[in-house]
Amino acid sequence: VAERESQIVLGLDPDPMALWPGCAELPSEGSVAKRAADAVEAHCRALIEAAGPACVAVKPQLARFEALGGRGWEVLRTICKEARGAGLLTILDAKRGDIDLSARAYATALMGELQTPFGPVKGLKADMITVNPLLGGDALEPFVAGARELGAHEGRRSGVLVLVRTSNPGAADVEDLPLASGGIVWERLAALTDELGRGGVGECGLSDVGAVMGATRPEHLVRARELMPHAVFLLPGVGAQGGRVEELAPAFSPGRAAGLIPASRSIATAYLTSGGDPADAARAEAERLRELAWRLSA
Amino acid sequence: VAERESQIVLGLDPDPMALWPGCAELPSEGSVAKRAADAVEAHCRALIEAAGPACVAVKPQLARFEALGGRGWEVLRTICKEARGAGLLTILDAKRGDIDLSARAYATALMGELQTPFGPVKGLKADMITVNPLLGGDALEPFVAGARELGAHEGRRSGVLVLVRTSNPGAADVEDLPLASGGIVWERLAALTDELGRGGVGECGLSDVGAVMGATRPEHLVRARELMPHAVFLLPGVGAQGGRVEELAPAFSPGRAAGLIPASRSIATAYLTSGGDPADAARAEAERLRELAWRLSA
Repeated sequence: VAERESQIVLGLDPDPMALWPGCAELPSEGSVAKRAADAVEAHCRALIEAAGPACVAVKPQLARFEALGGRGWEVLRTICKEARGAGLLTILDAKRGDIDLSARAYATALMGELQTPFGPVKGLKADMITVNPLLGGDALEPFVAGARELGAHEGRRSGVLVLVRTSNPGAADVEDLPLASGGIVWERLAALTDELGRGGVGECGLSDVGAVMGATRPEHLVRARELMPHAVFLLPGVGAQGGRVEELAPAFSPGRAAGLIPASRSIATAYLTSGGDPADAARAEAERLRELAWRLSA
Repeated sequence: VAERESQIVLGLDPDPMALWPGCAELPSEGSVAKRAADAVEAHCRALIEAAGPACVAVKPQLARFEALGGRGWEVLRTICKEARGAGLLTILDAKRGDIDLSARAYATALMGELQTPFGPVKGLKADMITVNPLLGGDALEPFVAGARELGAHEGRRSGVLVLVRTSNPGAADVEDLPLASGGIVWERLAALTDELGRGGVGECGLSDVGAVMGATRPEHLVRARELMPHAVFLLPGVGAQGGRVEELAPAFSPGRAAGLIPASRSIATAYLTSGGDPADAARAEAERLRELAWRLSA
């Protein structure tokens, strides 16, 4: 964040029916799946090239790549590599959550490498992944362990981002339920996140276990910060979902890198409102968000 | 269930380092990933051939296939087809949960087909998938809609299985929290599951929105049945996790198809305790479980 002077995360949610003009018309041969995957890859590359310089990370939404099958998974791998080459961190929006051996296998797929009798199969080696805490602490631990092993192995820090209070209206159904013991379900998730991250606080004061806190309910951020003083907050919901960068200041109280602001549709579709070239419009919108957040967190 | 006289679901959780003898020694060429994927495919095929006849469905754990990358995803597709050809339903253990467009994309990947400018890319078209309800009703609806569209399109019924009370010890951290309004978090998840499924109750009295209820805490099943009278229960945790078929009777009160019992390690590794051929041991263990559950649910 300090190096790039940016807290903006470029969301990659490619819908094959809404790619940038030209991406679906590139020369490409083979099956429908192959041609669709090539077009999606071209779109993501163009987005990274245009908006990447104003961002600190990319955040591919795994659902979009899985919908393209095996080829989609390989496009995801290529795009992660591309992003890394452009100096960006990779945050996989996976929202995985599963028990013991299955959580371990997801951690391998997304952050590690799989041992096989023929040698290792490389996983995506993401810097961060989002995880779902419904199944409790023992279902999150394999992800945290996976991030720490990857970090140790590659000589960098990796981490997980736990869903604490999501940005959708339906979050109220479960995450906002008041508990008999006092507090609210999401506050309990915040406490779980803080506990898991205690062993992973680095020199910068930030932990390798962060939280997803929807930007659509900024009134929760002060309380969330009290409960998770060391967590990096990923703050989705700015733009199309109604969240505003200006309201996110409490996220940055431990420092500028303590808040990351994903933007996907607002960058990719900026040209639809501004007119002109998609890449120019994306670049301008990413830079506008970067400046806004950087000033706010000063 | 009635046709096959079975409620047993064959779990497919292939670890490349623990495949059946011979699967890793098959002739296979190419990259490490290709050879590992071929070995995993051979293992899954052998398991389906041996244990499938005593089962009603297969349940691939998606994490295991994702760990093999794009080739793993294609093995998953092949295995689903193989299972269907053997007369088995496919239950994808995906535990997905995400908001609006992302949930929709997951539903497309797992149950539908993706529209692209080049034509449709086929998804896995599973009969059922497991989903995570932490994000609330609006995050589950796209999965339910996806299942209903697939069902209408293919002339069969498809459905989702909502995580309500999982089988792991950590489930207590969040799912078992008492609420200020009375009841427990998992009971609220059960109510949400029941609401979502009201519009999808078929002639058989069962809904297309079911629930995952861990077999490790059978004392919850009577209450769960009260809250979800029409739901199919998937009951993981029998065998390695300590659950016992004998304790699952309340799941079957609406009928024999109202409870599905997954078994993975107990079938795949039966030969390690019984000795002899892995396929013979798997067949015998699946048949033993089938008989036990069928008698119990009479």
